[in-house]
Parts: sequence; structure tokens; C-alpha cells
Amino acid sequence: MTDMPPDLPDFFDRLSRLAAAETLPRFRAGTAITDKGAEKGAAFDPVTDADREAERVIRDAIGEAFPDHGILGEEHGEKPGNGPWRWVIDPVDGTRAFVCGVPMWTTLVGLERDGMPVAGMISQAYLDEHWGGVPGMGTTYRRGKGQPQAVRTSGETRLEAARITVTDIRDGEYLSTAEAAAILDLTRGCQLCRMGTDAYGFALVASGAIDLAVEAALNWYDIAAVVPVVEGAGGIACTWQGEPITTAFPGGRIILAATQALADQAVERLKDIPLA
Amino acid sequence: MTDMPPDLPDFFDRLSRLAAAETLPRFRAGTAITDKGAEKGAAFDPVTDADREAERVIRDAIGEAFPDHGILGEEHGEKPGNGPWRWVIDPVDGTRAFVCGVPMWTTLVGLERDGMPVAGMISQAYLDEHWGGVPGMGTTYRRGKGQPQAVRTSGETRLEAARITVTDIRDGEYLSTAEAAAILDLTRGCQLCRMGTDAYGFALVASGAIDLAVEAALNWYDIAAVVPVVEGAGGIACTWQGEPITTAFPGGRIILAATQALADQAVERLKDIPLA
Repeated sequence: MTDMPPDLPDFFDRLSRLAAAETLPRFRAGTAITDKGAEKGAAFDPVTDADREAERVIRDAIGEAFPDHGILGEEHGEKPGNGPWRWVIDPVDGTRAFVCGVPMWTTLVGLERDGMPVAGMISQAYLDEHWGGVPGMGTTYRRGKGQPQAVRTSGETRLEAARITVTDIRDGEYLSTAEAAAILDLTRGCQLCRMGTDAYGFALVASGAIDLAVEAALNWYDIAAVVPVVEGAGGIACTWQGEPITTAFPGGRIILAATQALADQAVERLKDIPLA
Repeated sequence: MTDMPPDLPDFFDRLSRLAAAETLPRFRAGTAITDKGAEKGAAFDPVTDADREAERVIRDAIGEAFPDHGILGEEHGEKPGNGPWRWVIDPVDGTRAFVCGVPMWTTLVGLERDGMPVAGMISQAYLDEHWGGVPGMGTTYRRGKGQPQAVRTSGETRLEAARITVTDIRDGEYLSTAEAAAILDLTRGCQLCRMGTDAYGFALVASGAIDLAVEAALNWYDIAAVVPVVEGAGGIACTWQGEPITTAFPGGRIILAATQALADQAVERLKDIPLA
């Protein structure tokens, strides 16, 4: 993709610094929480000034660098563009972790071309850990002032030896009863399960520390940035039917796996779960 | 308690540095995992050299400083002492987090007098975050080279506004079916729930970022260090019956709460769950 925006790694670094300047001072600082759910008559759905302000500075930087590109963000909606490119922003993925002082929240920025995610950034400001997936460069990881290092998914192919992550296994929260039961069953087939990791856990799939991640009810801005990070590290990102993840991924359901063999085993167990 | 061992804050700092020198180089480094469960014909129960070596250096330092004190550690068992003092060590609480690259594991060191926990340390080496609860000094928190800061639990008294944490809500893993159902019900009565935090979440109760933590099937070394940290911050640590936590806490069941009112509401919902 020779027509990709130039200097993407530097641009991602700049976006992560801009976002950190808005998120970090508000982390564990008693920042006021607004319940977006209550405003819509739906379940508790927290948002803070960290979300709103981090998205604002990211949008401003993208708008200045790429005025023709579209932008879709969780908090401030869609700005249409001219042409194939659109940026997808989740300023604070894991807002529940954020408001609990748990440093598993991340800032996600993805770039799509004609609706396909092609580059992405996962950034955890408190840990100063940053992942970037850029075509032709694979996926890199940087902590603090260290040099970016290429990362690869683990080579794990056996479900019974796999480390799996899912954010919340309770039915009726994010998951339907059937989804929760299927994921529960899948976790029991793995060696061990960690919960509560949100997109930070997806980054750990890219780094080879976790072998498998399964979620449902995600939004596009939860996952657009993640797909290139996992794929760039040699991993598999697919729907519960084993299809590529595009804007139309059904039920917000994803599988992220270290290997095709592991993805296949997850698909086999999840593909027939009916959509609610 | 004027006969407490002197200079406990400095001693805790020294123990945390010694432990970090053993844990950090092995974190995300592909350290070999032994399954203690398989050795006993039980469920998967991982242990690594990080656990074993961190406990060894902590035991050595305690033995040198306080040769008459008893020591109980998760990996290397009990060394009887002469007198009322015993140290309780969990070198890596959250070994599952450790082997998944998730920086929610901690090193726990508690000090008991006549079976009652009186001082404790919770240390997360990767984040360089350290909590200490010492009688007469309350609970302090330090990150990196920063000065220790006094911390307090939140003042939250309403269950419906509370942030709760539990490590794993699946029945049959740590929890019985009745325990899992009761905790699930309790989480649904709270504003939000984070999972997968182990003792790091308990430290966040002391810091006022999380309001309530509930667990079952804990071991004494999982909790002895935590009780003084939470109590020193003004919080409540009790059994599911609302009793003080001593070595004999039934079912390994604990409640850690920001306020007595919140603890009372958790006790009300959990006190009648039968022991398996």
C-alpha cells in the first residue's frame, strides 16, 4: 500500500502523547463520571472528560494532518471525508477500568481504507506502553523511551494450553445468555483465563503473552485499531464465523488468536451461537 | 504497639526491591510454568521461578533481620518462630496474571502478632507501585521515587453507587456454585464491576479507587498483608459474616469495603451462603 499516509509510526506516537496529556491528569483524580446509559434509558455506560478531551485532541491532530480523511469517534461522532480513508477513535477503551483506577484502559486509533482496517495504535499512557500495527512494518511495541521492538503472537496451537482473555463473562451485561454460556465453555477448555483486560488484553495477544481473546457486543471503535495490531504480529482477527473483521462484523463478535489453528478451534465452538 | 519491629516502612521498601529483582526479569520473558495442581491431581495452579525466588530472598531478609520470628510462605512453607510474630508471604499473588503478561500481580508481605494481621505491604513491581499499612502510620502509597502519600478509602456508603471487584466469577474455578451466584448477584447490585484484579484491586480499595472487593477460597497468604493495608486506610476487612479476619477465616471468604455501611450491605447478602 504505497499510498498509505506517510510516517504513520511517528504520527501514532504524537497522537498517544496528545491523548496522554488529557487522560493521565484525570486518572485516579476523582474525575466526574457521566452515565451515557441513563441519558439513553439504557445500562450504566460511563464517560468522563478524559474520553471527551482525548478524542478532541486526536481529532484536531488528524484534521490538521489529513483534512480530506473521515473521522469516526466514540464520543464526538462521524466527520465524513473525501476518499477511501477514515480514522476510528476510542479515546478511552475500558472507561470502567479508568474510573476504578485500574490501568488496563487504552487509547485506540485505527485507520481504515474503504472500510477495511489497515493500521492501528493501542496506547496505555499510565504504563507508557504503546503498540502500533503498520502495513509493511509488522507490529511494534514500545515502553517509555525505549526503542520500538517488533512483536509476534505466540505459536500456541492447542486450545487446552491456551491463555484466554475476556473482559466480562456475566450474561446481561455485554453478553447475551447464549454468548456468555459459549464463552464460559470456551474458557473452561483453555489452560487459564484472565478477565477485565479490555483492549490491553488484545495488545497482549499481539505480544505473545496471551494466546486467545474472545468478545461480543463490541463497537467498531473498540476493534478497528486492534485488527492491524494483531494481524501485523502474525495473529488472526476474525468474526465468530471465521470471516475477516470489517465494519459490518455481526454482533460485535470477535476472535483474536495467536495462530490460525487456535482461531479455528474457537470458531468451531462459537459459530453457531444465534444472534440475539 | 510500641514493641512493633522498628523501621517497618523502610523494611517493606527493601523487601519490595529484593522481590522485584527476582520477578521483573522473569515477567513476559517466557519463564517456565510448573503446574502445582497437576502434581497434586488438582486444578491448574501455576507456579514459576519468579514465585520461588522472590519468596526465597524475602525469607532470607526476614530471617536475617528477625531471626526469632516465624515465617509462612506460599512456596516454601512454614518456619516456626519464638514469640508472637510471624511473617506471611505471597511472593507473586496473581500468578495467572503474571503468566499472561498482565501487570496486576503483586508481592504481598504481612506481619501478624498472635495470629492477627498488624502490618502489611502490597507491591506491584512493574508499575513500581507500593502500599504499606503500618500501625500508627495509616496506609501509604508510593509510586517510583515519589514520596509516600497517605491514602484513604472512598467514603462510599451506597451499594448501588459502588465500584466492586472480584477476580473470577466462574463457579467451579475458585468459587462454589452458591458462592458464584451470590457474588454475581452482589455485582449486579453495584454500579460497576471489574474482574481480574487479584490483590492489586484490594490495594485500590485502600486508595479509594474501588469501593468494595469480595472473594472466596483465598488462602491466608493471599490476605494477611492486605488486611492492615485496607484497615490502615480507614476501610473494613471482614469475613462474609462480618467478623474480623484471622488465620481461621472460614472458606477463605473476605469482604473489603470503603465503609462499614458498605461492608454491612455485602454481609447481608453473603452471610447465609453455605460453606461447600
